[in-house]
Amino acid sequence: MARSKYIIAVDIGGTNTKLGMVSTNGRILRTTSFPTCRRRGDVIDRVIKEAYGLVNSTHIRKRDILGIGMGVAGPTDHSRGLIHHFVNVPGWRNTPLARIVRSRTKLPTFIDNDVNVMTIGELYFGAGRGAKNMICLTLGTGVGGGVVIDGRLHRGSNLVAGEIGHMPINVVGRKCNCGGIGCMEMYVGNKYIVENALRRLKGKKNSLILKLIGGDRRKLTPEVLAIAARRGDKTANAVWADTGLHLGVAIAASVSLINPERVVIGGGVAGAGEVLFKHIRKAVENRTMKEHRHGLRIVRAKLGSKAGLVGAMQLVKLSLKERME
Amino acid sequence: MARSKYIIAVDIGGTNTKLGMVSTNGRILRTTSFPTCRRRGDVIDRVIKEAYGLVNSTHIRKRDILGIGMGVAGPTDHSRGLIHHFVNVPGWRNTPLARIVRSRTKLPTFIDNDVNVMTIGELYFGAGRGAKNMICLTLGTGVGGGVVIDGRLHRGSNLVAGEIGHMPINVVGRKCNCGGIGCMEMYVGNKYIVENALRRLKGKKNSLILKLIGGDRRKLTPEVLAIAARRGDKTANAVWADTGLHLGVAIAASVSLINPERVVIGGGVAGAGEVLFKHIRKAVENRTMKEHRHGLRIVRAKLGSKAGLVGAMQLVKLSLKERME
Repeated sequence: MARSKYIIAVDIGGTNTKLGMVSTNGRILRTTSFPTCRRRGDVIDRVIKEAYGLVNSTHIRKRDILGIGMGVAGPTDHSRGLIHHFVNVPGWRNTPLARIVRSRTKLPTFIDNDVNVMTIGELYFGAGRGAKNMICLTLGTGVGGGVVIDGRLHRGSNLVAGEIGHMPINVVGRKCNCGGIGCMEMYVGNKYIVENALRRLKGKKNSLILKLIGGDRRKLTPEVLAIAARRGDKTANAVWADTGLHLGVAIAASVSLINPERVVIGGGVAGAGEVLFKHIRKAVENRTMKEHRHGLRIVRAKLGSKAGLVGAMQLVKLSLKERME
Repeated sequence: MARSKYIIAVDIGGTNTKLGMVSTNGRILRTTSFPTCRRRGDVIDRVIKEAYGLVNSTHIRKRDILGIGMGVAGPTDHSRGLIHHFVNVPGWRNTPLARIVRSRTKLPTFIDNDVNVMTIGELYFGAGRGAKNMICLTLGTGVGGGVVIDGRLHRGSNLVAGEIGHMPINVVGRKCNCGGIGCMEMYVGNKYIVENALRRLKGKKNSLILKLIGGDRRKLTPEVLAIAARRGDKTANAVWADTGLHLGVAIAASVSLINPERVVIGGGVAGAGEVLFKHIRKAVENRTMKEHRHGLRIVRAKLGSKAGLVGAMQLVKLSLKERME
């Protein structure tokens, strides 16, 4: 029997960096993590130190390790292994991260942005399994997206495809930080969900939402709104109806254009579950043709916080395969 | 030197059906056409008769004819050669058109909807040449669309991708015939352009537009509005600004999702030219990120009325090639 092969997966987030030793069939053997420090050199040194630590503690032989895969919270150039810039952390502009790590570890190294990595993870090991055409969204401070066409991640002509959060959903709309107008994430980002709830809570002193946060409006989060909605709170439900509607309009537009069979939605806000998903599905149903909805499933992401590691492993497998073609 | 090969191209429109003998390098040798009759059987009989007529009049030997390609104004199943239904003409539901024509001519026959055929034509012989990722729009009564991903027409999971005209551009919007809400074509279809102009003309008795149509508002068309705008008429320009804005919002959404390098726009309304295109470009510029606009070109389709025949020829070439893979 062939010996198992492994990949060192790295998930560099704005707050924490995670590493995992992942088998090529998607099993995570061991993980470790550290707070993402401010200095670029420190982050890279620490990643390499932790990677060697994983090799030593799992007793995997170096010849059974196929490479290193890294997902990064920021725009990257996958083909050249570059980080364009790193969300909220200065000093990373145009870092040739793949080359640096490759030269220090002598292992094939590939990077991509975190949403593409999550999309690949869900496609091969999560809620996207078996899908030929798929859209993947991740909901949080902003809205990230990935597009799968004919079973492959679609990166686009400038490697920036999948910006579902920046699809305009209104002709006249809010001005977005990206420079756009009416971008979807201006209606459904964490901050806007909370703002919408606070607006709707004005004058409502007996709301279940307020009880859950002990009357302290600064403690209001999407998680609290999800609990309240599940218990039947009308204000919370109205907030999720708005959120689902706005997400649904951009998803309907994507479905009309690409005709996928699967829409996978992850990220913190997706944790609201059915109280959000029922409104998304309704909005999409009201805004797409029957022919587009046939066989279409809108589902929650499955891998959760593991998506970054499993996806980074799969990124290496796919990149090595492409290289051999 | 290898002998030239030919394909019989057919463009079945709601009003007229065109046929052409087209060489595999895109040259149209000879064409013929007839009014698309009401009865399905009559249309098919006539197509076959005219096809034999083309063969006889061009003296091309049957062994040099590789097949028949047909573009149809209505939803089709390319893979099974089916017409789902035919725009405005009853009696075509689920017609196995490719099989019928193949069995009567003994030639490999392939069909697709007219917008996909136009997209393939522009991609290989028109304004889309060299593009890897492209969006194609055709403007008329409604708005059709085609999507090219990595150099290939993207058909989608149910073969209904590319419905750019049915992408919602407003959360709260006009109800569309398709069942949707705020569909882009509800703002830019021929009829809506004229309605917008009539609304803006109220109380304006000295408008250049009215002079051009001798005061008869029933004669108002997009063509007249294009002439007026080119001569500096402010009302006409305002109508094109609205049209460009609404088209631009859906194009911006498509660009953010797919990241193409080319947007090709054809169909009657595109004939307005710069008076429309400058507003489309501005709307897209205001609603996309710099990274998406780098290298992006929004251009007019090149093949005009030939797109249907040249595209149907290329459809056969591609389908035969796929079959051999």
